[in-house]
Amino acid sequence: MERYDIAIIGTGPAGLEAAITAKVRNKSVLLLGSLGTSDKVAKAHTIENYLGLPKISGADMSKAFLDHAKDMGVEITPDKVNAVYALGDFFSIQGHTGNYEASSVILAAGMSAMKPLIGEMEHLGRGVSYCATCDAALYKGKSAIILAYSDEDEAEAQFLAERADQVYYLPQYDFSGNLGEKIEVITGVKPLSIEVSDGWATLVTDGKALEADGIFILRQQIAPSQLVPGLELDGNHVAVDRSMKTNIDGLFACGDITGTPYQYIKAAGEGNVAALSAVAYLAEKKKAK
Amino acid sequence: MERYDIAIIGTGPAGLEAAITAKVRNKSVLLLGSLGTSDKVAKAHTIENYLGLPKISGADMSKAFLDHAKDMGVEITPDKVNAVYALGDFFSIQGHTGNYEASSVILAAGMSAMKPLIGEMEHLGRGVSYCATCDAALYKGKSAIILAYSDEDEAEAQFLAERADQVYYLPQYDFSGNLGEKIEVITGVKPLSIEVSDGWATLVTDGKALEADGIFILRQQIAPSQLVPGLELDGNHVAVDRSMKTNIDGLFACGDITGTPYQYIKAAGEGNVAALSAVAYLAEKKKAK
Ligand SMILES: Cc1cc2nc3c(=O)[nH]c(=O)nc-3n(C[C@H](O)[C@H](O)[C@H](O)COP(=O)(O)OP(=O)(O)OC[C@H]3O[C@@H](n4cnc5c(N)ncnc54)[C@H](O)[C@@H]3O)c2cc1C
Ligand SMILES: Cc1cc2nc3c(=O)[nH]c(=O)nc-3n(C[C@H](O)[C@H](O)[C@H](O)COP(=O)(O)OP(=O)(O)OC[C@H]3O[C@@H](n4cnc5c(N)ncnc54)[C@H](O)[C@@H]3O)c2cc1C
Repeated sequence: MERYDIAIIGTGPAGLEAAITAKVRNKSVLLLGSLGTSDKVAKAHTIENYLGLPKISGADMSKAFLDHAKDMGVEITPDKVNAVYALGDFFSIQGHTGNYEASSVILAAGMSAMKPLIGEMEHLGRGVSYCATCDAALYKGKSAIILAYSDEDEAEAQFLAERADQVYYLPQYDFSGNLGEKIEVITGVKPLSIEVSDGWATLVTDGKALEADGIFILRQQIAPSQLVPGLELDGNHVAVDRSMKTNIDGLFACGDITGTPYQYIKAAGEGNVAALSAVAYLAEKKKAK
Repeated sequence: MERYDIAIIGTGPAGLEAAITAKVRNKSVLLLGSLGTSDKVAKAHTIENYLGLPKISGADMSKAFLDHAKDMGVEITPDKVNAVYALGDFFSIQGHTGNYEASSVILAAGMSAMKPLIGEMEHLGRGVSYCATCDAALYKGKSAIILAYSDEDEAEAQFLAERADQVYYLPQYDFSGNLGEKIEVITGVKPLSIEVSDGWATLVTDGKALEADGIFILRQQIAPSQLVPGLELDGNHVAVDRSMKTNIDGLFACGDITGTPYQYIKAAGEGNVAALSAVAYLAEKKKAK
């Protein structure tokens, strides 16, 4: 497996700036996230305070960012990361569609305002999971409920449905797709809480409750502490120093995930610092060998 | 005297971003510095790593930044700041051409690689000074040596020459001006050290030594500790936390002056954070009243 110098998670301003800075420093870069920048960029109205791009729409800013990345030879690998494991000398990264290795990792995954459901954290890994493709093999002949937050999740549901016997798909976004016969799409239903007993999971909703062998929650973002076991937090945010170092050697964080203010140029500035700190980390590691 | 909400010192990326962010938040802003962005922006070759402005020349980046500022109604007051005094409820700012007041201050003055001359710090305020216009009144019938680092200093020399009897002007830049009869321009001479005894200052150079009542050093940048008495440093840099607070209430810093890496987008990101912290400081102060 190719081992990248730097893996970057998230394609908002923090992740993109980290990627171009790492490229300028001639590092091999794996940039994981959605192809079209983050929604917070692409869907913004008018942005007034990103120096150099006056009164710009989110769509134009997204284009400017992506053009810049392309110009620098930065490619986005479209995947969602489920977990990052620090294995001493390197990191193993589990994505929804692939596994990756890198010598250092930069978390630029943004912040989500979404609160976990009642029972979600309690049953994580035992009835509740964030990655359907990762666990698909375990669902042969079984049933699953998928809480989906973006049309990108549809492919994942279909992949699971190839193995599972029964898949309930509960889109929490404007759904207009067609998932075929094997998937039962249930729209207009809000999840409330999760109960698990005797290996049987129940999703309580504002409509009728649903039962299955497991529940998948495919949010765009998952809690940083779930993403990286052992990661030190400061409240809801990843604890970093001014060089964007986390408590885990070789792991850096930048942008909204590190704390307020939530701002584009703050995120980009931190992405730059995180990338340069990763470069310094790699140089030190090389020297120590 | 008008008391501004926020005074910002320096017109590099840090200061300009701080200014537009403060404007977005409807604060009255005094932006002090050179009219044409910092030399580090304007004179740069190609910049590759400022997200959104791919492969841009310093001249074009400077134009993009200044256009943005203008667009937001941010005006630059062309002055060089000699000292900032924290007076409890507000700050008094002594410039080379004017004095100002503000409720909060953001230092975005960059870093200078220049080392002080031997004897410079020792005799500061007693034979050595950084502002000729500020001290001009004291030089009636006296003599002065001016070490000048930019053609912007020529006006200051002429102002001093209206009072002083004798002015030696030692340009440390490509000089092609004409300062009139009252000023003796000495080109191609490098200053080495300063001695002061019995109220008489000697500038030792790589040519012959010069003597006068005082020596003015008109660098673009002065040490942060000289700029703001009582400011806590971290090595050569201003000590700040992640919200860009310094040890002085209401005083914030951003950009190169706060430490490495020296990078445009890092400076701009910190300018944004510093401005939002200043806004929060002003809100708190108002509430406390
Ligand atoms: C409505 C709105 C208006 C705003 N207006 C302004 C404004 O005018 N000015 C301003 O400065 N800021 C504004 N902001 C804030 C700004 O959007 C954020 O500060 C900025 O986008 C943060 O950048 P980031 O790169 O840290 O995170 P994000 O832009 O959130 O990007 C993070 C990306 O990582 C992805 N990701 C998360 N987890 C994973 C994973 N496990 N695997 C792969 N990818 C993952 C996310 O899907 C996302 O695409 C606004 C925000 C909102 C919501
Ligand atoms: C040759 C060179 C190439 C570079 N290339 C890159 C690059 O490719 N990418 C990158 O990201 N970075 C690069 N940098 C670094 C970048 O220039 C700095 O990080 C950036 O300019 C810092 O911004 P700032 O706003 O903190 O300070 P500055 O840009 O230095 O601006 C500070 C301003 O404050 C003014 N000032 C200082 N004291 C006072 C005072 N007392 N009163 C009024 N005004 C004052 C200064 O004169 C200056 O105009 C380069 C630097 C150099 C020297």
